[in-house]
Amino acid sequence: MRIDGLQYANWSEKIFRQLREGDVDAIHVTIAYHENFRETVLNFEKWNRWFEQYPDLIVKGLTAADIDLARATGRTAVFFGFQNPSPIEDDIDLVEIVHTLGARFMQLTYNNQSLLATGCYEAEDGGLTRMGKQVIREMNRVGLVVDMSHSGDRSTIEAAEYSERPIAITHANPYEWAPALRNKRDNVIRAVTQNGGMLGFSTYPHHLKDKSDCSLTEFCEMIARSAERYGAEYLGIGTDLCQDQPDSVVEWMRVGRWTKEIDYGEGSKSAPGFPPMPDWFADNRDFANIEQGLRATGLSEAEVQGIMGGNWYRFFKDNFGPAPGSAT
Amino acid sequence: MRIDGLQYANWSEKIFRQLREGDVDAIHVTIAYHENFRETVLNFEKWNRWFEQYPDLIVKGLTAADIDLARATGRTAVFFGFQNPSPIEDDIDLVEIVHTLGARFMQLTYNNQSLLATGCYEAEDGGLTRMGKQVIREMNRVGLVVDMSHSGDRSTIEAAEYSERPIAITHANPYEWAPALRNKRDNVIRAVTQNGGMLGFSTYPHHLKDKSDCSLTEFCEMIARSAERYGAEYLGIGTDLCQDQPDSVVEWMRVGRWTKEIDYGEGSKSAPGFPPMPDWFADNRDFANIEQGLRATGLSEAEVQGIMGGNWYRFFKDNFGPAPGSAT
Repeated sequence: MRIDGLQYANWSEKIFRQLREGDVDAIHVTIAYHENFRETVLNFEKWNRWFEQYPDLIVKGLTAADIDLARATGRTAVFFGFQNPSPIEDDIDLVEIVHTLGARFMQLTYNNQSLLATGCYEAEDGGLTRMGKQVIREMNRVGLVVDMSHSGDRSTIEAAEYSERPIAITHANPYEWAPALRNKRDNVIRAVTQNGGMLGFSTYPHHLKDKSDCSLTEFCEMIARSAERYGAEYLGIGTDLCQDQPDSVVEWMRVGRWTKEIDYGEGSKSAPGFPPMPDWFADNRDFANIEQGLRATGLSEAEVQGIMGGNWYRFFKDNFGPAPGSAT
Repeated sequence: MRIDGLQYANWSEKIFRQLREGDVDAIHVTIAYHENFRETVLNFEKWNRWFEQYPDLIVKGLTAADIDLARATGRTAVFFGFQNPSPIEDDIDLVEIVHTLGARFMQLTYNNQSLLATGCYEAEDGGLTRMGKQVIREMNRVGLVVDMSHSGDRSTIEAAEYSERPIAITHANPYEWAPALRNKRDNVIRAVTQNGGMLGFSTYPHHLKDKSDCSLTEFCEMIARSAERYGAEYLGIGTDLCQDQPDSVVEWMRVGRWTKEIDYGEGSKSAPGFPPMPDWFADNRDFANIEQGLRATGLSEAEVQGIMGGNWYRFFKDNFGPAPGSAT
């Protein structure tokens, strides 16, 4: 089974066909960076059109059973998530509304401070806010997973501990392997995985050691070491593939509407756009490379299968429905 | 001259007439607590109707010259402000838009964490955020005054220092006189006034020593001591009068849409509503009581006149237009 914990491509029939060529059973796709509620609904609408237009390639994913259906019918199940809580604006009741519409992951922050928690690019991390705690409780209730990929260390640890259900870092790597602001320190990954949460390993060059030049072996050995340290069952893939996106999109991701200046984020003035992907992972047809690379590290076949998709499957199965005993 | 630095009444012809009976030349009124941009526009619309309906009593205030006009024609100039940055949502370009519509004050936070800074009810204050700094710069450019009445100490001090133009605490009292979460510690008031900013003294019972039982003498002596400490020219009145509001409104102010639980704010489960006003300030007809009370403390007539309105007049005059040299 192959499941990707995060993608943000410029979707097209070409990419949907590549998902099938790569035997990808399910993907979590980002449908909001800075969009407010109404703008996010436009993105749900866009996907409804694609599901209508490409019924042989993709199917809307709401529960793990949709992955079974996708596998049985040779399609890819598409699950929705937000990289920012902007779609719920300042309204806790929108948590259940976006879950009803199909959202299954929501980051509490995207780089900057949000109403809920602190992003990894802020100078100070005050941890979960008053609203943040209320919203986590509501997300727990309805089955919307807390994703802390772009959050600060303190906020992430507090979320892992405060949340009554496991949380996720859908796309990042260990900081000690590649010291990027977006990568996660040992105590952060430990807090997430010890509470049953998941870490999805990113292939986005800014999160890789040696960036675009990172070798497949380096990447897979880092995963194998993480399996020893945190337990293979809490690990998955979250490629952060941003295929076919124009550079204007990375500017929107970084700048949104919060500043009138350009913020280069993980890039720089001389390299403001999307970086080139490593040669062993150009698009969805390359998942077999990662699978082979993981096998070569000496991980067991069960561990490899778990990291390639089985672990995300279990996590989706446990965390996308209402909390046991809750009255939704 | 009499100017009130903050009111949030349930406006009616009755109250507009009381403003005239009390010789109030100008007031800063709150038109947003948690409203988003579109909802705030509805509140601008409401005031447009009132200006059309009561042209002999009130006039829209945009610059200090509108106070001169109001005085010359026996009316009250009404200036608009927000107690939360919710009207600009996550969009820095809305700063100029709301200023064009007439907003002249905006609090960076209302009790809770915002996208810009930390509210006084949060456990941790991380100070100004990345967006907060950008937005202060934009507010400075267009002439929208930073109001930190409901912000945390660290955020307030940072805002006073980061802002290139004076900021305000439109409605609060010294913490050492009445230790409420909403009142301000010495170093906070000092940071604001030393940078040319203003403090407006509140008559809202939760901010008073002995609450509703606070005497006029106690209140005025606290102001006189503050004049000695911070300089009388940086002080004004900001009554926080919430006249004729039903208790459902104080619930909206405290709870907004951020929690599904009741938050009692400065109240309590046994006293959830608006507290009764002190007997010496029931409504706008009572400003003469405060003026007499200030005279009785031994403050000079010039100081009394400044605190009753002259200082706000100077502040409005200096801070509601574009920054010198800016291209607005």
